[in-house]
Amino acid sequence: MEYKFSDRVLTLKPSAIREIFKYAADPSVVSLSAGNPSPEAFPVKEIAEISARIFAERPIDALQYSFTEGYPALRETIAAYMKDRHNVGRDFDGVLITSGAQQVMDLLTKSLCNEGDVVICEAPSFIGSLNTFRSYRARLRGVPMEPDGMNMNELERALKEEPRARFIYTIPNFQNPSGITMSWEKRQAMYALAKKYGVLILEDNPYGDLRFSGEHVPPVKSLDEDGLVVYCGSFSKVVSPGMRVGYAIAPQELLQKMVVCKQGEDVHTNIWSQMICQELMTKYDFDAHLDRLRAIYREKSAFTMKLLDEHLVPHGVTYLPIEGGLFLWCTLPDGVDMPAFCKEAVLRKVCVVPGNAFLTDENEPCQSFRINYSTPTNEQLEKGIRILGELAAEVCR
Amino acid sequence: MEYKFSDRVLTLKPSAIREIFKYAADPSVVSLSAGNPSPEAFPVKEIAEISARIFAERPIDALQYSFTEGYPALRETIAAYMKDRHNVGRDFDGVLITSGAQQVMDLLTKSLCNEGDVVICEAPSFIGSLNTFRSYRARLRGVPMEPDGMNMNELERALKEEPRARFIYTIPNFQNPSGITMSWEKRQAMYALAKKYGVLILEDNPYGDLRFSGEHVPPVKSLDEDGLVVYCGSFSKVVSPGMRVGYAIAPQELLQKMVVCKQGEDVHTNIWSQMICQELMTKYDFDAHLDRLRAIYREKSAFTMKLLDEHLVPHGVTYLPIEGGLFLWCTLPDGVDMPAFCKEAVLRKVCVVPGNAFLTDENEPCQSFRINYSTPTNEQLEKGIRILGELAAEVCR
Repeated sequence: MEYKFSDRVLTLKPSAIREIFKYAADPSVVSLSAGNPSPEAFPVKEIAEISARIFAERPIDALQYSFTEGYPALRETIAAYMKDRHNVGRDFDGVLITSGAQQVMDLLTKSLCNEGDVVICEAPSFIGSLNTFRSYRARLRGVPMEPDGMNMNELERALKEEPRARFIYTIPNFQNPSGITMSWEKRQAMYALAKKYGVLILEDNPYGDLRFSGEHVPPVKSLDEDGLVVYCGSFSKVVSPGMRVGYAIAPQELLQKMVVCKQGEDVHTNIWSQMICQELMTKYDFDAHLDRLRAIYREKSAFTMKLLDEHLVPHGVTYLPIEGGLFLWCTLPDGVDMPAFCKEAVLRKVCVVPGNAFLTDENEPCQSFRINYSTPTNEQLEKGIRILGELAAEVCR
Repeated sequence: MEYKFSDRVLTLKPSAIREIFKYAADPSVVSLSAGNPSPEAFPVKEIAEISARIFAERPIDALQYSFTEGYPALRETIAAYMKDRHNVGRDFDGVLITSGAQQVMDLLTKSLCNEGDVVICEAPSFIGSLNTFRSYRARLRGVPMEPDGMNMNELERALKEEPRARFIYTIPNFQNPSGITMSWEKRQAMYALAKKYGVLILEDNPYGDLRFSGEHVPPVKSLDEDGLVVYCGSFSKVVSPGMRVGYAIAPQELLQKMVVCKQGEDVHTNIWSQMICQELMTKYDFDAHLDRLRAIYREKSAFTMKLLDEHLVPHGVTYLPIEGGLFLWCTLPDGVDMPAFCKEAVLRKVCVVPGNAFLTDENEPCQSFRINYSTPTNEQLEKGIRILGELAAEVCR
């Protein structure tokens, strides 16, 4: 049988990162290419306790069909928490629980974009989301990043030149892959531009709770009096990615369309994991848990940046110091062939992600690669970055 | 802000069944409209045990990111089980774990259908799947059902008249909503027609293990030497729907596209629930568990059919006796206004699903409604069907 595929999948490629995972699965390879939370960051004892309690006290609630919109108690908990802590959510907003934050990208694109419509993205940006946008045949328009977020003149130019722009996709805190945090001034400017041009904002904030230094910057959604912003949150980096629980806070009118799309995709999100998240947030000291995570990542990122200073910076490799999140963005000196560098690194048993994977057009020139520091052990970080340093010594002259 | 939605969601309506659930949530209403497994059917003790063991012995495996294709041990277990028991799976096939069986419908449609492509469906058929096909703007072509499955002449006519047909969607066992099981002869005929016209088959089999009388009929996929059939299985009716675990067994070439689509939708399926299913199938007596379910449904369906015989049949309402599954399909005499009957039933606090909800065109005439017997208690069944009988006595003359 010769299969005939839809146009959309013919143009889709598997995520370059998930392909790289296949090399990374070789135990002799030091993988700096993942984006996994540190194994020590999981609240295992608490999850085990809650799970045992659920099956002792109300097993059917955790096993029967549930609501597409999500577990009501979790939706209420998130709404109250986000309003209280971050001034996120107005009367016109609601909460939808999704099967991981990735599903928010999917459902919003499905609800808003016809083929050929445009999503304005940070360049670089998270490849998983870019591929989701592409899967609905949306066209991507990249806006260059600066150390404090998107270049706002370029954003306005994109909004002017792209009448079919449907939303601006931003990861405002400790962006994946660049580690960049958008300044408060730029968040206000982005909101004003979205309003001026009548284009929505998709604010993806999986790492916001993982700030381990510097000053908190409020979400773009905290400015939203006009129903312009879809806020996307996730339990993947603060509880467990294997559970697949994320959420959207967005105007009800938009959420209703996303709910209809979700019915057709997976009916509802695994209910046991929603109950776990709800109890973790309400019956345990969730703030203390987040503090513990921040302490883990503060120490581990400092250790990693010190290694970069020792082994890579002397050869002209630069990186942006981070205040949170899981990624470091390293840039090779001009003239060095970045893809060749990453390929040679794999042969020497170190995996990093070539930066062009995060561009709207993978063929654009790029001197950067992404390092993840949360998954490897300290020993692996030491070994991996030492090998990258040796390679840099050879190729950066 | 005035929102501009994609064409696909503008034509989508929320599932009529899930809308009816909102009435059904009123505790004074007897709901015969759901499709939930009976609460006594859940293997609660076993799930609690397995879950405790996972968190004691290998918590990180259940909490960390996992593979888009699914938990390897579960994929192997399913492949061996389905080959062994049902001769399903050839060398060219693979297994993909999905977030409920609904996601198989979604991923296959996404992989195969451009806007305007055609899905050939049984008429009536499961509304959840029909809405998924519609969400990719596929056009639905219904083929009338007979007591032993689709009318094969009409199927061939549809295949001739629809050059853009991409697959035939069938629920061969105890179909939702009609309760019909396709005969072995028709399964062979359907396979031959699919081969002749080069069109795939999507075989959706959520109820196959719930046969409580009559003779087992092998799956269409057991015939598949040509890579024509995508088999869709589910743990929703035999373990727990709240867990959201389903799977596809299909040619690798197709599965690879579905995997890329799944990456963009939810990255992977909740891993804890995959581990639960795997241990239930391998460390417990899964056959004994299925026997227990069949005993529950055998007794409960007999009880319900007896009530229908007593209260509805005397007024000219007919129904198809079932040998498995969760649904009974009742047909009002000609001349009775079915939608008005269902509306009046709701006012009298009994919820059933009007049959036209399951047609490819809801505006076609329909005399039938669907009853679910697995969710209500015996007392609720008695009360509900007695009220339907009183109503039938008034309107069927």
